[in-house]
Amino acid sequence: MSGDAGDTDETADTDRTESDRPLRTDLRPIVEAVRATDADAFVAVGDRSDDGLRYLTRFGGPDRPYALVVVPNGDAAAERAGRAVLCAPALFREQAEREFVAAASDPLADQTGNDPNSDTDTDFHDGVVREVRSEAVGDHAGERAAAVVDELTGRRTDDETDAGGPTVLTPASIPHDAAVYLERAGIELTSTDAVATARARKTPAELDRMRRVQRAAVAGMARAETVLAESEVAEGDVVDGSGDARRPPLRWEGDSLTTERLRREVNRALAARGVRDAGNTVIGAGPSAADLHYVGDDPIRPGEAVLLDVSPRGPDGYYGDVTRTFVVDGDGGWERRAYIAVEAAREAALEEVEPGVPAKTVHGEAAAELAAYGFDPNAGEGETGFTHGTGHGVGVSLHESPSLSGAGELRPGHVVTVEPGVYDPAVGGVRLEDTVVVTEEGYEILAEYPFGIVPQARE
Amino acid sequence: MSGDAGDTDETADTDRTESDRPLRTDLRPIVEAVRATDADAFVAVGDRSDDGLRYLTRFGGPDRPYALVVVPNGDAAAERAGRAVLCAPALFREQAEREFVAAASDPLADQTGNDPNSDTDTDFHDGVVREVRSEAVGDHAGERAAAVVDELTGRRTDDETDAGGPTVLTPASIPHDAAVYLERAGIELTSTDAVATARARKTPAELDRMRRVQRAAVAGMARAETVLAESEVAEGDVVDGSGDARRPPLRWEGDSLTTERLRREVNRALAARGVRDAGNTVIGAGPSAADLHYVGDDPIRPGEAVLLDVSPRGPDGYYGDVTRTFVVDGDGGWERRAYIAVEAAREAALEEVEPGVPAKTVHGEAAAELAAYGFDPNAGEGETGFTHGTGHGVGVSLHESPSLSGAGELRPGHVVTVEPGVYDPAVGGVRLEDTVVVTEEGYEILAEYPFGIVPQARE
Repeated sequence: MSGDAGDTDETADTDRTESDRPLRTDLRPIVEAVRATDADAFVAVGDRSDDGLRYLTRFGGPDRPYALVVVPNGDAAAERAGRAVLCAPALFREQAEREFVAAASDPLADQTGNDPNSDTDTDFHDGVVREVRSEAVGDHAGERAAAVVDELTGRRTDDETDAGGPTVLTPASIPHDAAVYLERAGIELTSTDAVATARARKTPAELDRMRRVQRAAVAGMARAETVLAESEVAEGDVVDGSGDARRPPLRWEGDSLTTERLRREVNRALAARGVRDAGNTVIGAGPSAADLHYVGDDPIRPGEAVLLDVSPRGPDGYYGDVTRTFVVDGDGGWERRAYIAVEAAREAALEEVEPGVPAKTVHGEAAAELAAYGFDPNAGEGETGFTHGTGHGVGVSLHESPSLSGAGELRPGHVVTVEPGVYDPAVGGVRLEDTVVVTEEGYEILAEYPFGIVPQARE
Repeated sequence: MSGDAGDTDETADTDRTESDRPLRTDLRPIVEAVRATDADAFVAVGDRSDDGLRYLTRFGGPDRPYALVVVPNGDAAAERAGRAVLCAPALFREQAEREFVAAASDPLADQTGNDPNSDTDTDFHDGVVREVRSEAVGDHAGERAAAVVDELTGRRTDDETDAGGPTVLTPASIPHDAAVYLERAGIELTSTDAVATARARKTPAELDRMRRVQRAAVAGMARAETVLAESEVAEGDVVDGSGDARRPPLRWEGDSLTTERLRREVNRALAARGVRDAGNTVIGAGPSAADLHYVGDDPIRPGEAVLLDVSPRGPDGYYGDVTRTFVVDGDGGWERRAYIAVEAAREAALEEVEPGVPAKTVHGEAAAELAAYGFDPNAGEGETGFTHGTGHGVGVSLHESPSLSGAGELRPGHVVTVEPGVYDPAVGGVRLEDTVVVTEEGYEILAEYPFGIVPQARE
């Protein structure tokens, strides 16, 4: 749609004009968590960098704190489950009305409840009445939330015989100043992980966003792989000198190819598809491929592993995550052995992905497979072998529940990365990563991308 | 450097290979804040979205919490001012060593102290010894910080006669769970704004980063202005029908031009220069130009204002911020009158920018000028007139101290936007924004960009 010759048909996948019904969140799990703990309300305070608050409100928000208060209806059998009040920051009332209130009542809004197995939209209403308050915008968000809690729970706490003030559930990492405002208002705080739990299982509407951003991510990978395939090995291969001599960097479009040049190509491809690179385009080459978070500028040399980990942020803030590793003009040494082992570990891990399986089993299988190929499956950071977990949940945060090294079982709607890798700090690293959703039958890869250590032109 | 024909010479400005000595932060203001309040230490806890922590450590960090502890030397006259310990998250020790410790001791590191007037690098050492701890990485960052505070301040609190535990300064918005861990360890918390204050005045090395990202921002603007200049007015101008009829959208490269298409062009230009659009490329057209935070998809029509606000994030996390407004084939109506008023307000505001001037004066002058042109300088959100403040500080956050509507005086090294604007929700909006640094003599615009309501080809 951007009209650029470099675009492919996949561009349409991320267009806002497609699947662009506003997203809204089923707040019943929050209402139920409040009821289950005999609390009076739920309060979250944060700014636009607070992914939990973004999930709950679908409000893009400013970089100043704002607050959400959710209060269940006192009568659990009532038609309306409760009320949700967003205390809007200054100058953001209009946007908050649009994203938090209007989106939820839009007849074209996604009407799908938290049932990841439903592939048709049902007539879903969470029964939580949403409103935006824009009074007292100069006050701290915690102070405004306390006033709303007082107002909405006042009658009920008066009716009851307990002498204490209201109790509210909050995420554990609520800003301390907000917590102090609430406590000073006589409100007792109890932390809850209800938001993290609700976020872990994705709805069809969320999966639609995640497929779109993941398609953009693999388009970015295709750009990188194509650049590598087009690159030329420079003349006069091995530099004379010490045993540490490395080959001269690849040439691409008349200049040396570096990780920074390649990153810019990937990030331009992401921008053309309307998603943000989010500072997450990690590219390492040779030894820096063993650094899990390398974003520096290294020459890319033939015969050395080039590891690309692309994790853009797309529609409604959902992340994608894909990793591939390539070697241009390799000699079939360490990198090829590592690649074969990692491919086998990936298959062994995916084999386990289905509902009811303990998440740890997936990591265990990948680790066992790597061990069978002679790689240390419990290597520490900076050591040689498998130095990290096999995968993590992905959603409106790049890392969220469930972890494939953590407790608990996989459930339908969980979205996780599967990303075994092996590293040798002196040589490089190989990692292969896809993002998959757990389905009733097993799993679905959100966007397929080919494998192969030798880069091919993909555009 | 990306080899694309669309690149200009300015690309080199954002290359990592230039001005790429690592950045480090003078921690003496933190040490002094601890001493001045008779506290024992400073503690910050946060993840990569915590800009204050990023400023203090220059550590890119993960999306999981980590902690920084700064403890002054008990003897203020000692050669070493104190110690700073970064409790690294799992798998990030290597990166933390590189960015927090090695960068600060690198002989090529920027050796410039917090003196924005110095334009030569002096032999600066803040005397704070930095180290990374990677033990107990499974524990909460607040718990790890508490252990480090205990260890580093233990002797001193034993030596003194007060029976209480140590007192630590923290930013007010430290995560509540971290605060609870500290308090449970017998540590008393007092909030401090020392970090915000230290951040407000930029060093020459920080200004170098800010000029680079601002040059990328104006390159993005040049891309947008060029696309608008290349666009064609469609045949059969005015649509028949009601009085609300609007002209058909502009055509560009064979398709209708929309805010989303234009945004992708801007964001690709930013990516090509190695900076992130950070989700901040706000483009409105017609009525949506009156929405301060519009990121939706609207057709761009001749005769209506197109407002572009570009705020990318560049080297070391520093932001740029620039706004221009254009009208293609306008009729000289509301938009032109608004443009003239806003240009005058901008000049009146800049006239005031120099050290010692109360920040509010700058806003006052812009507002008075807009009032003189007949625009309401105190309009509320959704009303017609000047609905926001004249400017805000910019740095490692897009909005930071000082505000041009807040208390305090401008000081050398303050970086602020100057961005008057007027809006009519039924018609559109006009805003013009530059980012300037306050100098000894007045101000310097970080990257100049031309004015003019009629778009010109700039590439």
